[in-house]
Amino acid sequence: MGGEDVKLLGLWASPFSMRVSIALNLKGIKYTSSEESLEAKSELLLKSNPVYKKIPVLIHKDRPLCESLIIVQYIDDVWAASGQSILPADPYDRAIHRFWAKYADEQIFASLGVILCAKTEEEIAAAISQMKTVLEQLEEAFEKCSKGKSFFGGDSIQYLDIALGSFWSWIKVIELLTGSKILEKKKIPLLVRWGDKYCAHDAVKDSMQDVEKLLEYAKRLQAFVKNAPPAQ
Amino acid sequence: MGGEDVKLLGLWASPFSMRVSIALNLKGIKYTSSEESLEAKSELLLKSNPVYKKIPVLIHKDRPLCESLIIVQYIDDVWAASGQSILPADPYDRAIHRFWAKYADEQIFASLGVILCAKTEEEIAAAISQMKTVLEQLEEAFEKCSKGKSFFGGDSIQYLDIALGSFWSWIKVIELLTGSKILEKKKIPLLVRWGDKYCAHDAVKDSMQDVEKLLEYAKRLQAFVKNAPPAQ
Repeated sequence: MGGEDVKLLGLWASPFSMRVSIALNLKGIKYTSSEESLEAKSELLLKSNPVYKKIPVLIHKDRPLCESLIIVQYIDDVWAASGQSILPADPYDRAIHRFWAKYADEQIFASLGVILCAKTEEEIAAAISQMKTVLEQLEEAFEKCSKGKSFFGGDSIQYLDIALGSFWSWIKVIELLTGSKILEKKKIPLLVRWGDKYCAHDAVKDSMQDVEKLLEYAKRLQAFVKNAPPAQ
Repeated sequence: MGGEDVKLLGLWASPFSMRVSIALNLKGIKYTSSEESLEAKSELLLKSNPVYKKIPVLIHKDRPLCESLIIVQYIDDVWAASGQSILPADPYDRAIHRFWAKYADEQIFASLGVILCAKTEEEIAAAISQMKTVLEQLEEAFEKCSKGKSFFGGDSIQYLDIALGSFWSWIKVIELLTGSKILEKKKIPLLVRWGDKYCAHDAVKDSMQDVEKLLEYAKRLQAFVKNAPPAQ
């Protein structure tokens, strides 16, 4: 389904962009994608997301949609009859997925940003400790949501899997950059196993960033931040 | 419908709490409510929202739900057959409502916080200018969403009306506190008219905060912030 009327403006390294690809894959929607760069944004991106000027943007039938989790819900709504459901069917489960997805977005993304831009070892240590606490909370959430099955969505990948999974390669990059173990089997055994299964899933594996390649990207990003002039 | 199995833990002055009341009103759901205070949180609140320890919490059939816009969507899902729909029926309109609701949440709430905690006139002026820019963006969004009708949802109040409307009394309080006109008919005529209609709506008028009472609350909040010990 889909085809030339579905276009993703994205960036391979972006956790948010990956969410859209995976949702489209789960629904079996064909799409074209256009790779943006942080340095030179295309006219189409600027026109399509004039408020934030950020990827990802999904253009469907010439209408732009912005914000990754909003796009994922749109995909689930528009192609409700294709593939599997992305939001759980039960309203309470749906609210729980939305709650933890927002939590992951706010907490993990903030910690990633702090670590990449940190100027001192203390800042890095505090952000890693915070990230571990967040993952321990999500371990508990996994236990409740998955009900002994493989994913937050049970037998299939759903909304919260997509939201959290998008940070997985980035967390591994942070481990390599800082020499700290974050995904510890002793502390978060269910999430570690979940992460392995998620990354290997058919709808995910081609969109999940290669950790070595992402590490090089993260180093370039750090150098860019370090050399950027201070904000006025 | 509803009744004793629906309980709202809220706070009359909270924009977020009000969203839940209005969604329940639109659906015609009876509920009990319990007023929390910022200073002494109830055991029930701490147990029901252990992650954030914040209102609003909706307890439905003994299960707690947190985060106002997630609760609003839950209400729309659970009581889909009662009253009117809160999310627009069309997936694209739904995405647009979600986009601007997130924008209002992030931008207006941040500006309110800056103004209430500001230490200098410059900080206040910058935040008011920012808030005006945000409202001008939302004026454009209103023009597109409402299609010449009274609300973002057209003839009826919908998701984005509920999200933005919750800040209306607070914006009026900021006008009184700072002596700055923010809701200017010349700049944002459609939003000013929308705000009047929204506040007078049957599902809203009893939940909308009285501006004079909220002004007193805001002054107490400012005094509390001013006298609070600095963060460690």
